[in-house]
Amino acid sequence: MTDQPTTPAATEGIGQSVRAELTALRQSIDNIDAAVVHMLAERFKATQKVGELKAEHRLPPADPAREREQIKRLRELAAGAHLDPVFAEKFLNFIIAEVIRHHEAIAEDAAGDSTGGSAGDVNAG
Amino acid sequence: MTDQPTTPAATEGIGQSVRAELTALRQSIDNIDAAVVHMLAERFKATQKVGELKAEHRLPPADPAREREQIKRLRELAAGAHLDPVFAEKFLNFIIAEVIRHHEAIAEDAAGDSTGGSAGDVNAG
Repeated sequence: MTDQPTTPAATEGIGQSVRAELTALRQSIDNIDAAVVHMLAERFKATQKVGELKAEHRLPPADPAREREQIKRLRELAAGAHLDPVFAEKFLNFIIAEVIRHHEAIAEDAAGDSTGGSAGDVNAG
Repeated sequence: MTDQPTTPAATEGIGQSVRAELTALRQSIDNIDAAVVHMLAERFKATQKVGELKAEHRLPPADPAREREQIKRLRELAAGAHLDPVFAEKFLNFIIAEVIRHHEAIAEDAAGDSTGGSAGDVNAG
């Protein structure tokens, strides 16, 4: 609840009610972003475990068939939520690219250390 | 890409318990993705309204000071959630780029509808 010293430059020409509406919208956006960040933290915990399983069983970091299923499903969910399906697909690709980077790092760690003992925080290089 | 028959190849060499663990993790990932997609749909509803307010009051689509605040806050939230802050910042930049595209489109629509016709208010770079 800190009142941030907001940007007088961008909003000084507008009336108080408009500024209040803008502030309220931005607070909702900030709340949503906090929720999404925590969701993504949880998501990377799951993909970290997937990466460790894959490394342990010598599965490839990327899985094109699984990714096609995810994209298809997310596009359908996005359409139902009135979110641009093209954006939803771009979003998933953005996340998957990061996950694959993690999986490659885990696989490299596993290859370098056959006891497979490193299971710390996400190593996003 | 064309539809290919699903590839059992990726997981056929692993045991049943490992496959079950992988499936459980992927179900969690899918649940999280569905939640995030719906969050993002709600977020774009809010930014759509922000875009309309900005267009109506001739505010620029981008707001660098606001973005700096958002990035700083999200990096802090990410650190607290054990999510890579660098990734959180990349993620926010990815979303903001999409939002600015929307705002530019709204501003262009508003400029096309306005009676004045004074050009060059929006820098759609």
